[in-house]
Amino acid sequence: MEKHFPFTETSENSVGALGEINLIARIREAFQKISPPAPRGIGDDCAVLPAVPERFSAEATAGTPPQRLVTTDSVIFSKHFDETVSPENAGAKLIRRNVSDIAATGGVPADAVLALVMSGDVSAAWFERFLSGIALACVECGVELSGGDVASAPGKNFFSSTLALTGFSENPLLRTGACEGDFLYATGTIGGSILKKHFDFRPRIAEGRFLASLAPKTVRACIDVTDGLLKDHAALLPAGTHAEFDFEAIPISEDAHALGGNLIQRAFCDGEDYELLIAVAGTQTDFFEKTWRENFPQTRISRIAKIVSGNENPELTQRLADARAYEHFLTEN
Amino acid sequence: MEKHFPFTETSENSVGALGEINLIARIREAFQKISPPAPRGIGDDCAVLPAVPERFSAEATAGTPPQRLVTTDSVIFSKHFDETVSPENAGAKLIRRNVSDIAATGGVPADAVLALVMSGDVSAAWFERFLSGIALACVECGVELSGGDVASAPGKNFFSSTLALTGFSENPLLRTGACEGDFLYATGTIGGSILKKHFDFRPRIAEGRFLASLAPKTVRACIDVTDGLLKDHAALLPAGTHAEFDFEAIPISEDAHALGGNLIQRAFCDGEDYELLIAVAGTQTDFFEKTWRENFPQTRISRIAKIVSGNENPELTQRLADARAYEHFLTEN
Repeated sequence: MEKHFPFTETSENSVGALGEINLIARIREAFQKISPPAPRGIGDDCAVLPAVPERFSAEATAGTPPQRLVTTDSVIFSKHFDETVSPENAGAKLIRRNVSDIAATGGVPADAVLALVMSGDVSAAWFERFLSGIALACVECGVELSGGDVASAPGKNFFSSTLALTGFSENPLLRTGACEGDFLYATGTIGGSILKKHFDFRPRIAEGRFLASLAPKTVRACIDVTDGLLKDHAALLPAGTHAEFDFEAIPISEDAHALGGNLIQRAFCDGEDYELLIAVAGTQTDFFEKTWRENFPQTRISRIAKIVSGNENPELTQRLADARAYEHFLTEN
Repeated sequence: MEKHFPFTETSENSVGALGEINLIARIREAFQKISPPAPRGIGDDCAVLPAVPERFSAEATAGTPPQRLVTTDSVIFSKHFDETVSPENAGAKLIRRNVSDIAATGGVPADAVLALVMSGDVSAAWFERFLSGIALACVECGVELSGGDVASAPGKNFFSSTLALTGFSENPLLRTGACEGDFLYATGTIGGSILKKHFDFRPRIAEGRFLASLAPKTVRACIDVTDGLLKDHAALLPAGTHAEFDFEAIPISEDAHALGGNLIQRAFCDGEDYELLIAVAGTQTDFFEKTWRENFPQTRISRIAKIVSGNENPELTQRLADARAYEHFLTEN
């Protein structure tokens, strides 16, 4: 398997050897298709942007004025990816995982700022490929790059990238809003993401837009599944309720089957699925399933649980006795 | 001198021992005064914000609709601060240096997302003090915290914080726009920031707002002095011009005098001054100085250079023969 270690022993091939001016010139060049001229793009103290992007104002004319969405997420070497991942895929992941948060809120992604923190020994060749992955995913998702910052990290072998992404929605879809009696639906398939989906997923922007258009009567709440179904479904539950899962209905991925082991545990705890988990009003499930099939005939939707009263979920507890939701710090200490 | 090493040898005192849930609970608590309830603040996939914040819409009713400004900057241990700096000052610096970019663009800071990347051994006590510095500076500058992300860094002894800050301005003040014949003015005093100003400065929001109100007839362009006057003044110069400095007029700080050495070099190369450097139309200098004194009688303003034709500046070159502008990567490799 090809290795993509971001660091170089040969100092003349490092970003340190380029110097800041050349480094930023390379970033500008890599991003020329996704970053408009300053001050809208890279190059001034701040990016200067219209309060509502033109492409969104047109879309929004019919309804209420849009609300602005903001999210931030990082992608760090040896944390979110390692040397087995191509630099293009690592860069694309930074964009896609932020866009997935905008999608889960029913928004259209708009513009972003990029902050890089890296030790001087990062390989310039690796870095250019990382940038091209960012550029490609920005085009794919309709994200404009507005600017950013580059800082050198102390020491060696350190590479961290952080994106702050803005989006707009006339009708944002929140995590809150689900009620007892609602059903939980999942898009696509879940589990086993380590085989492929970690670095090869398409944020569900169109689906999120569609779901927002059905809120709040039919669609009540939404989240993207990143930390795993176990942890993420809990974020949708109102106090004093739990989800009664139909374990047979959980859309376990082919990759989870290929990996084997406890498949329910894979579905609940693997994480990084980047699917949408949706709370639908109990009286609206027939309508929801019908309209979903009409609009997204290619995209599987599965009714996996019902929100019921009570804090306990003995069956889930038993099935996941050995499993724990992904917790960044707990898992590493 | 008190030391503030962010890392702890005692693993039970580390943020790693807290676990992600407790860690985020502490962040929420530290930020309860600056982060409104979700979805406007911490807690959902995205922060959901009005396209134009209420407090700004009122201000903007008279004039043109505001434009949105976005900036991002990081503060990293052993790069931007070390153990001699109190955690409160380090946290406040993250806010203030981002706000300074909004100020230099003539904007009002509005809302921010915070991305933290840190190794598990960061001391929880140190971290809480860092957060309280952020909260204090947010209140001071009128910044609302909208959300963020926490990621664990591999290894030990690593702490990096990145802010993405949004602001609004009806009339953004850019780096571009200066012309031959314009004069350059600096606010406050410059040089020797290492003694105090690095961690004790007030971003010039009110001054930036005032300057923007004078653009473009009187005030042509503006930048905040962070990398040093040498590098930052060059960003204001149109092609084929240079700045003819009045070296006697440069407002060298008391701290630069206290540090001693080549004071001109200190003024041009120390950096981290967080003063505004302003290009004023040649015909407007009398009006500009008069109106400045009326509006900011307490704030020194110094006419330090004239923009003239030609790429060369032999006197500056000679005076700074040994000095170089601060370049992140060059200085560290």
